[in-house]
Amino acid sequence: VSELKVETQRRTQLLDATERIAALVEGVEGSLVTLFVPHTTAGIVLQAAGEGATAVGGDVEAAFDRIVDEGWSWEHVHEGDANPWSHVRTALTASSVSIPLEGGSLGLGAHQAVFLAEFDGPRARTIRVIVSR
Amino acid sequence: VSELKVETQRRTQLLDATERIAALVEGVEGSLVTLFVPHTTAGIVLQAAGEGATAVGGDVEAAFDRIVDEGWSWEHVHEGDANPWSHVRTALTASSVSIPLEGGSLGLGAHQAVFLAEFDGPRARTIRVIVSR
Amino acid sequence: VSELKVETQRRTQLLDATERIAALVEGVEGSLVTLFVPHTTAGIVLQAAGEGATAVGGDVEAAFDRIVDEGWSWEHVHEGDANPWSHVRTALTASSVSIPLEGGSLGLGAHQAVFLAEFDGPRARTIRVIVSR
Repeated sequence: VSELKVETQRRTQLLDATERIAALVEGVEGSLVTLFVPHTTAGIVLQAAGEGATAVGGDVEAAFDRIVDEGWSWEHVHEGDANPWSHVRTALTASSVSIPLEGGSLGLGAHQAVFLAEFDGPRARTIRVIVSR
Repeated sequence: VSELKVETQRRTQLLDATERIAALVEGVEGSLVTLFVPHTTAGIVLQAAGEGATAVGGDVEAAFDRIVDEGWSWEHVHEGDANPWSHVRTALTASSVSIPLEGGSLGLGAHQAVFLAEFDGPRARTIRVIVSR
Repeated sequence: VSELKVETQRRTQLLDATERIAALVEGVEGSLVTLFVPHTTAGIVLQAAGEGATAVGGDVEAAFDRIVDEGWSWEHVHEGDANPWSHVRTALTASSVSIPLEGGSLGLGAHQAVFLAEFDGPRARTIRVIVSR
């Protein structure tokens, strides 16, 4: 298990971690890379990168804020830092994703990038990286 | 593959299975634990536990019921036990999640717990546990 | 890593790929099969098959179109082929799922089938299949 530390800047943010993860697994022997996020208000999502990616990212962020509305009535708001909507948005993404490792390279699709999906930023976050055979 | 049997009590319910899964993998050699739910109206979700966890769980349950509304028009309601909304809620969670195994211990984050996400309870459910190298 | 090619016929479509995946892994040694979709407008979902499965599939498709509405205001619509809603629907499913391999057979539940979840069809799509120990 190796770890990657990232810092998010915004409340809801798709943060592209592809290059750093690719560098971590480069040349490593194995067939599968699993990415694991040890948080309850951030997940992991594979989405579009490259040309037009910023715009897609913004649309995805805005859509999550819309699908789970902060304005709904929530039980868990008696504490000052309560954010149940962040937990629900995270539950809609994933806490792990597994990607083929092919000849020591991350086997992503041509348009795929790895994003930490932040739903309670800004924060310091961790992505754990496990290679299996 | 080992199996864990759980019993849910409510229609929509996040059931904390962390301790029983941790006990199953304790001391087992390997690098990755995959949890698999062999059902189509229940999934698996990692979410907050400990202080305030009951409240977060209730908020997550209520939010899933709200994101996918039983009141929408549905095709698949000709049978008495039709519950298409349960299938959709399940599709929004996950059927599998993979967690690092570190020195024979489940490598969850400090605030993470493993929940079976029941969307058609009460029922007897199964979580399959696979350890890989 | 082996690959499965499928062709979708509709804009939003759950395409059942269970039999072809089961055939690919039949008799293969290992404990876990990971399915990976290298696309950003299609994901992978385990859902109900067999009796009544067509109807559930239609309900799941309609629900995704409803949860993420094309009529919302979107940033990324300056290009003729912009489809941010397809990306968001994909982010709500999964890019990978891992299934137990038991004696060379896919360890799905009795009512589970493997669906490619198409959100920008019709298209040629790929599912990558990785077996680990």
